[in-house]
Formats: sequence, structure tokens, C-alpha cells
Amino acid sequence: MVSATSMGYDDDRASINLPDDKDMLSKVKQVMKEKSQLEPEYLVVVGIGGSNLGTLAVQEAVLGKFYNQLDPTTKVLYADTVDSDLINVIVKMVETTLERDGNIILNVVSKLGTTTETVANFEVIIDSLRRCKKEYGKYVVVTADEDSKLWNLALKEGFSVLEIPKKVGGRYSVFSPAGLFPLGLLGINIEHLLDGARSIRDTCIDVDIEKNPAAIGAAIRYQHYKSGKNIADLFLFSNDLESVGKWYRQLMAESLGKEFNKKGKKVNIGITPTVSIGSTDLHSMAQLYLGGPHDKFTTFVRVENSTSHIYVPRLGGYSELVSGIQGKSLKDIMDAILEGTKSAFGKDGRPFVEITLPDRSENSIGQFLQFKIIETIYLAYLLDVNPFDQPNVESYKRETRKILARKKKY
Amino acid sequence: MVSATSMGYDDDRASINLPDDKDMLSKVKQVMKEKSQLEPEYLVVVGIGGSNLGTLAVQEAVLGKFYNQLDPTTKVLYADTVDSDLINVIVKMVETTLERDGNIILNVVSKLGTTTETVANFEVIIDSLRRCKKEYGKYVVVTADEDSKLWNLALKEGFSVLEIPKKVGGRYSVFSPAGLFPLGLLGINIEHLLDGARSIRDTCIDVDIEKNPAAIGAAIRYQHYKSGKNIADLFLFSNDLESVGKWYRQLMAESLGKEFNKKGKKVNIGITPTVSIGSTDLHSMAQLYLGGPHDKFTTFVRVENSTSHIYVPRLGGYSELVSGIQGKSLKDIMDAILEGTKSAFGKDGRPFVEITLPDRSENSIGQFLQFKIIETIYLAYLLDVNPFDQPNVESYKRETRKILARKKKY
Repeated sequence: MVSATSMGYDDDRASINLPDDKDMLSKVKQVMKEKSQLEPEYLVVVGIGGSNLGTLAVQEAVLGKFYNQLDPTTKVLYADTVDSDLINVIVKMVETTLERDGNIILNVVSKLGTTTETVANFEVIIDSLRRCKKEYGKYVVVTADEDSKLWNLALKEGFSVLEIPKKVGGRYSVFSPAGLFPLGLLGINIEHLLDGARSIRDTCIDVDIEKNPAAIGAAIRYQHYKSGKNIADLFLFSNDLESVGKWYRQLMAESLGKEFNKKGKKVNIGITPTVSIGSTDLHSMAQLYLGGPHDKFTTFVRVENSTSHIYVPRLGGYSELVSGIQGKSLKDIMDAILEGTKSAFGKDGRPFVEITLPDRSENSIGQFLQFKIIETIYLAYLLDVNPFDQPNVESYKRETRKILARKKKY
Repeated sequence: MVSATSMGYDDDRASINLPDDKDMLSKVKQVMKEKSQLEPEYLVVVGIGGSNLGTLAVQEAVLGKFYNQLDPTTKVLYADTVDSDLINVIVKMVETTLERDGNIILNVVSKLGTTTETVANFEVIIDSLRRCKKEYGKYVVVTADEDSKLWNLALKEGFSVLEIPKKVGGRYSVFSPAGLFPLGLLGINIEHLLDGARSIRDTCIDVDIEKNPAAIGAAIRYQHYKSGKNIADLFLFSNDLESVGKWYRQLMAESLGKEFNKKGKKVNIGITPTVSIGSTDLHSMAQLYLGGPHDKFTTFVRVENSTSHIYVPRLGGYSELVSGIQGKSLKDIMDAILEGTKSAFGKDGRPFVEITLPDRSENSIGQFLQFKIIETIYLAYLLDVNPFDQPNVESYKRETRKILARKKKY
């Protein structure tokens, strides 16, 4: 592992040094400060895959899935894919705001600026912005690799720019400006996020493997993969962690799903990540998980402290429907369901581990994401694959370019 | 297959007769009319698994994921699991509305009324309603099996009641009042939904298998399962169809994931359903799908006509970022990405089928859901398992009850 204090970005494993980078943090905070002063009603994040999944994961985990519906100072919209109906809604919200002289911030995130969906959506949304605001440049922040085409266009247009270090790939970029700027603008404490990442990183690079949770996690997963578990379910007992699941899904799928191993041998290896939400998905997936094939390894995640405390009231006449819940907290009921599920898994020989997060704070979420990043890198080493490349995505992109070239323009 | 004209509900396959039931429809419309007159600002659906996934699927498919943020007459909230933070947000929205004399409708959906999460959330929310409204009964609609404890409580409390036929299980209940009432109250055309279901059902029970798309679909899936594909990915190229994916996930997981076959032999059989969204998940999962193990069968779903038409503008200086997209519609770009993906899958020997929906109308969505229901029933027959039971979910519920009995009350 790269020394945590070397502060370098010239190695593929560079991302683990992000939490130490004070220059990066101060640049992000400077742009955050400038853009906050515009009092934006919306932050529109244009980016897809590694360019927005970390932001979405942390935003929903810390601020909740209902964030936009709770009338925050700055709402957030994610323009990821080129779905006309999605982009239409976003453009309408943006234009309505601009037309009554409100402000938005447009944050375009793309390492090379050559992602089809991101560029298409960027052009659509900046077109609205240019029509409504004379000095449109000050509302745009571009997060990209230095000297990429997108970076150079941003400089020419007078947009703010934030750099993603070249060796930090999309799925490892949540602690770079790709995640930090939009999260900070929404009021998330990015120092605490980085503190959490830094503290668990130091534990996860311990050479004493017995004291290293990431090494232990990777070893357990590797053993179960070898014994035929080709599916890894991340079973999150918290509604607001669903997008953390989606972030992890990319991390595992892209880092471990490989046609060739590091020796160049064709192996078609990989573990398929799935995401379940407790207790919701017990009511849709438990029959398969407890009755179906023994092809899964499960990681249960529970959150020790919820921010809200709600109790089932003692209503006369209602107690006969389900006994034993009146007077109990929803939290206790949820915990009992998770305990019951673990017990049923155990009795049926279904393997699992459990991770308890103290809460959904920035620090805890930072720890969890950084832990999963390092665990995944270790698992790739055990599987003898390169966790930092994604060569097979080129095949569909090549086919898409050919087809796009034949489509007519309007 | 049950005759489509027999109109009976005394067979496990009863759900396919729901689209013909005029009495059910007229009862639902009568309650819809009564409750619409209260001009509710929120519809709160309390239910989990089969009791809300169909409603969520159709609502988001037809009205969009951004529905609540577009200021509709009646917003919708889903209280499914006992997540304190989720229920806290819902209770606050409900109480704020009631305190300024606005109205809500509370729709509790549970076949037997013995689901822990549903009863806990019902008690929490009705407690707010009782404190704010003297005649609270008129704001509550209970959808349940006739003569269940919940049904009888509803009659005693003066709530409206709607019946789920006893033989219609949760995952098959979207075309029963479980789905129809909340969807209708939100302005969805439930006649068109049922028309779609009815028309495809008549095709899908054709004894000429070559003309029967559900039989063909089941046979293809069965062959691929037999040849080692233990994962079925539903890859939906439309952002608003994600919850249709979640509905299907339950249908497949619970109907096919079985410990025992119909002869009582222990088989631990099942196919693990996964849901991907195009093009978003190409940027997180494509590396695994195209480089990883050959353990998946994919169903691509595309929507022929989007409601919105957006074109990439011809902005000077931006055309160099990605060539060939300016002047094209987002729809054309999305179609090209799907074509490119299919081409890459084909070249690498990754099996798939494609389903094209004409649009996201009620009729088209009704067709798709009904098609998947019948296909799944056929597939269960091929796998020699019972698609209508879910015996293994009892194991975690039993464990949960034991643990709950030990927890202290407050």
C-alpha cells in the first residue's frame, strides 16, 4: 500500500491519499464560498457513474432521500443519463428559477469530459443558462482532469475549475473535488467526511492483518467466492443508505469484474453485487434468500443511532393486530427484525457479516466508503485482477459511436 | 390456465381474472370519488412488499419519479418499513398539513393486517390523525382480506374498506384494490391499466405456444437457467421504470426461489433478479456484464415514445468534447447507446431479449406487468415449484417475534 503520508498521486492507489490533501480542500472551500454567495436555489450535478454516485450516496445518507421536499436553501438535481423525461423536468425547474431571477449552480463532473451523456446534458442545460444570464460563466463549476478538453473549454469560458488527480479513477473519486464540492455546497461537513476516511484508512493499511478490518473483510469474501458464492448482497437496514449501496455496486462490479487476470489469462471473473434495503426487501427477497440457492454472501449494515425517535402508541382496539409492538420504538422493532433475520440466516447456513455504523454522520459515512474502497482493492489482489481499469466498457461505447454516426440530425 | 371468462377467485391463479371484475372496479371508483371530494393534499400508503410495490411501480412509471416535486393536487408518501427517520418525515408532513386544516387520505394495505411494519406505521400515523381530526374515520381506507382482523377493526372504526380476494397473493395484487385505489386517487386511469392487462392476458393464455409471448419468454429463461445463468437482469432504459424493476424483483424472487419443489424434494432452486437502469448503470455495471462471468440472462426494456423531446443544441466551442451529438435528440442518443450495448452483448455471447413498450401509458404498463406475472407462473411450472407460496419467510418472522417479546417497552 502507498504510504499514507507520501501525499503522492502518481500511483494507481492514489485515491487513499485524498483525505490528507489540504491544498485540494482549501481550493474546494474557496469555490464553495464564492458560489454560496450567489445563494443558488438549485445545484445541478451533471455527471454519471463515478462522477455522481459518491455525491448521491453521501448526500442521501447524511441529508436524507426527502432532502428536496424539505425546502432546503439549495435543492439538488442529478442529470446523469440522457433520459428525455428526466432532463425535461430538470430543465423546466432550472428555467423557472432563472426566469424569476433566481440562481442555480451547474457542476459538471467528468474526468476527461468525453462522456456522451454528460456532454449532451451539459450542452442542454448551459444553453438555458446562457439564454437567461448574461454572465453565465460564474454559475458553472467544472470538475475534471487538468488539461483535458473540458478543462480547457472551462478556462476559455471563464468557469471555475476543480481538479480530479489523473490517477484517481471515477469510482475512487468521492473524496476528490468530484464529491467534495457539491456535497460542501449542500451544507455537508466535508472536513468530517475526510476525517472519517482518514481515520479508517490508517486502520485499514495496518500490516498486522488481524488488526486490519479491510484485509479480514477481503479474505472472508474471497473464501466465499471460492466456495461458489457468486453474488454479494449489501443489505442496508436504513432507507437513506440505498444510494450508498449503488455506489458500492459500481466499486465492486468495475473493480472485480474482469475478462483477464493480471497475468493476461482469460478468466471472466467477478462477483455480482446486489443491494437490499431492510426491512423493505425482506418482504420481496427473503423467500429467495432463505429458500433459494446457496449462491450469496450477505453484508448486513445497521445504523446504531437514528436521528428521530418514534414510538408505537398504545391505541385501544389496535393491539390485537400485531402483539408486542405497542409502546416500543420503531428503532427497537427494526433491530428485532434484523436480529431475527440474522438468526434465520445462521440457522440455515447462509453466510453473512454485519457492520454497525454509529450513525449517518459525515464521519461515519466517510469511514464506511473508505473501508469499502480499501477492502475492494485487497479483494482484487486476492483475485489477481487489476482493480483500477475497466477495459470492457470500451466495447459498447465503440458500437454506440458507430450507430450514432449513422443517425440523422435535426 | 384458468379460463379468462370464468371470473372466479377460488384458484391460486385467480389474479389473472382481476381485469374483468366490474364489481371490484365500481367499488374502487366509488371510494375514490368519496375521498377525492375531501381534496387530500397527501395520500399516505401504508403497506410493504406486495402491498405497495405495484402501486409505486405504476405511479412512478406513469407520473414520474419527480411527481411530488411537481406540485400535484395530491402528493403521495409511502410508509413501508419501520425506519424512524423515514416515518418521522412522513409524520411531520402529515401533521403540518392537518394542523393548517388540510386533509390527507390514509390507505392501509395488508392482506391479513398482521404485518408488523404495516401495523406499527398505521398506529403511528392514525394517532396523529385522531389528534387532529374529530371525524378521523372518513380519511382512512383499509384494503385487506374480508373478515381479517384488520377488516373487522376497520368496520368498527367506520373506515372505508376494499377487499383483496383471498386467493390473490401480495405480489399478484397490483390489479386488485391494493393497487387500483391509490393509483386512481392520484389521477391514474385505472380502466386503461386494466385494459392493458386484459389485452395481453388474452394473448398470454393462448394454447398455441408459438403465438404466446409469456410461454416463449418462460421457455427461454428456463433454458438459460439450466445452462448456468443464475442471475436475471432486468435492464430498463427509462429512469422512471426503476420501481417496475423492484416490483418484478419480488415477483421473480418469491415465486421461483424455493427450498422444495412441488414433489416435496429439497432443491434450493431460484433465479436472482437484478435491476439495472440504462444508460446510468452502464457506467457502473457494464465492465462486469461484459468482462465478468457468464452467469446472467438480460432483458432489455426500451420505451418507444418519450413524452418530452429535447435536442442537443449546436453550441460553438462545445462540439469537440464529444463529436456527433449536436443536433440530435436525447432519445436518439439513448437509443444508440442501447443498440451499441446489445451489439456488444451479442458479440461477446451474452444472452438477452428485448421488450419495447410503446410508451409509459397506463395501458402499456398494465400490459408489461400482466405479461411478467403470467411468464413467471409458466416459469415456475417449468422449474416444478409453486409460484404462489412463500414458506421460508416464516423463519425470520418467527425469530423476530421471539426477540421482540424480550425487548422492553417504554
